[in-house]
Amino acid sequence: MTRYKVVLEYDGTDLIGWQENHQGPSVQSLLKDAIEKFCGMRPNVVGAGRTDSGVHAVAMTAHFDIDGAHSPETVMRALNFYLTAQPVSVLSCEVVSNEFNARFDCIARHYKYIVLNRGSAPVLQKNRVYWVPRKLDIDAMRSAAEKLIGNHDFTSFRASECQAKSPIKTLDRISISQHNDLIVFEFSARSFLHHMVRNIVGTLIEIGLGKPYDIDKIFAARNRAAAGPTAPASGLYFIRADY
Amino acid sequence: MTRYKVVLEYDGTDLIGWQENHQGPSVQSLLKDAIEKFCGMRPNVVGAGRTDSGVHAVAMTAHFDIDGAHSPETVMRALNFYLTAQPVSVLSCEVVSNEFNARFDCIARHYKYIVLNRGSAPVLQKNRVYWVPRKLDIDAMRSAAEKLIGNHDFTSFRASECQAKSPIKTLDRISISQHNDLIVFEFSARSFLHHMVRNIVGTLIEIGLGKPYDIDKIFAARNRAAAGPTAPASGLYFIRADY
Repeated sequence: MTRYKVVLEYDGTDLIGWQENHQGPSVQSLLKDAIEKFCGMRPNVVGAGRTDSGVHAVAMTAHFDIDGAHSPETVMRALNFYLTAQPVSVLSCEVVSNEFNARFDCIARHYKYIVLNRGSAPVLQKNRVYWVPRKLDIDAMRSAAEKLIGNHDFTSFRASECQAKSPIKTLDRISISQHNDLIVFEFSARSFLHHMVRNIVGTLIEIGLGKPYDIDKIFAARNRAAAGPTAPASGLYFIRADY
Repeated sequence: MTRYKVVLEYDGTDLIGWQENHQGPSVQSLLKDAIEKFCGMRPNVVGAGRTDSGVHAVAMTAHFDIDGAHSPETVMRALNFYLTAQPVSVLSCEVVSNEFNARFDCIARHYKYIVLNRGSAPVLQKNRVYWVPRKLDIDAMRSAAEKLIGNHDFTSFRASECQAKSPIKTLDRISISQHNDLIVFEFSARSFLHHMVRNIVGTLIEIGLGKPYDIDKIFAARNRAAAGPTAPASGLYFIRADY
């Protein structure tokens, strides 16, 4: 058995998310299909993150084991051949130790969330951004974002279906930058709760629209209903996993 | 009659181009449909450029005349309402003099062409770039591009169907910049011949791949066959019209 580490780009729009199930195509199922067509085996594929339906990846790391000793170039070319016309592309492939685990060895995960803040609906960036027509107050969002950094009980920003043992996480970084009509939120942490980035962005957007949300009070409430709505999946990108 | 100047964003992927005809949806036909739904009139819509099928616009300027004195905000909101779900969006709208002509008053047109230069096919930028898997030599393309700037007979870079009276054009600017895997070509001129940008890019890509094309010889040949192939429409964007 040889273990391969791959880095994937995907467009989540027409996928049910990372995780394989029988409701539709997922990143995992498309990748397993391609591996099976290549070598006849259908190993499990372990990813650094399990993104939801509609969420994209610029560079998601994953690993899987297959028999034989194919060169990483051969594996990458074969998978991309079988993934032609699918919304998943293998950007790089390398052989790693059988100890390497894309999920458990990951020491930092990076996401970005893109908002298009203009009066007219997106056309060129349809399904790639979240469209907010009303002008957002960047300074108000930045002040609120600073309070989210650090070690906190993120219960108020956690999906009800979240399976993590503890709601306590350390958010290492949030940055908010503006590029013409685009507002880009960047997040870094060792790990995130389910929907945590989208719930934080949804809350920051409410604050940017002038709603009286107070981050300290939201943390103290330890109640999902205290925070803002979940921002749509279309604006969210898994950017990078560090090892 | 009031004349309105609008600036449009569009995704050319599923359009037959700017020009209305009966083969499918065009930017012109979708905009005329929206105007007609708004006010019952179906005026001609004149654009700064007539892009081909598959070519996009970040900001294309156009004008049209309708009866009455609707505020520009009303016109923009109405058109965007009727354009919902269409790959065209109105970014701005203003009332202009009845003398203003989006085509003939334009003093400079700006295009960009985006190449994705990496081994793996595009997923997030599918239909938004031209994918060139083999490594391009940027310096060689830049040296060749410099020779294209200025006043030349561009017959060798002109589509056979081109209707311009003269093949002589002045190319004011070409710049080639690299952003990770993306190579962005930018072009500015008062006007361009049909397929001129795509034929120049197709030739520069051949040069970037090491093919022995010589710009001086291509100009001298005054023959379309002397230059490289037409680069695909998917990488081309109309960026801006100046007045």
